[in-house]
Amino acid sequence: MLLLITYDVNTETSAGKSRLRKVAKQCVNYGIRVQNSVFECVVDATQAHELKFKLKELIDTEKDSLRFYNLGDKYSNRIEHYGAKSAIKVEEPLIF
Amino acid sequence: MLLLITYDVNTETSAGKSRLRKVAKQCVNYGIRVQNSVFECVVDATQAHELKFKLKELIDTEKDSLRFYNLGDKYSNRIEHYGAKSAIKVEEPLIF
Repeated sequence: MLLLITYDVNTETSAGKSRLRKVAKQCVNYGIRVQNSVFECVVDATQAHELKFKLKELIDTEKDSLRFYNLGDKYSNRIEHYGAKSAIKVEEPLIF
Repeated sequence: MLLLITYDVNTETSAGKSRLRKVAKQCVNYGIRVQNSVFECVVDATQAHELKFKLKELIDTEKDSLRFYNLGDKYSNRIEHYGAKSAIKVEEPLIF
């Protein structure tokens, strides 16, 4: 399935900046960054469960927002992209 | 159908900041803001076509990124949210 992950992490504090880095790092292990706070992860049910658990542990539920969208297995015709492929700066190289 | 819209607008210039405001303003007319750059719009095919056209006209395709995800009609069990409902600052009140 394609699991779409979008998040808003409050970065007003250094702790928030750290949470943001950790959330992105975790997502990179499962999929690709398509926008600053948007990841597309092709995962099975077990991986999806695992990733959701890890991300929920990382965020501050009072300050941050985390959304998951399950686009199912037949997702290619559900997605349209226009414009630039943003040059996403992540600490490590994106893992494909 | 539920049309999910995510975008990254380059705001390094005042023109970029203006594009960002316009994109958000346009999306607010069709749906609700669930995260800073994420909107969920329940629309029919005509409205979806209309909205996509308007947003494509607004962005700078060299600098900005615009993604549409069609979650179909049976979308409620495709969406999970954890954390805060971010207090989204929009110029006008959100239209429900």
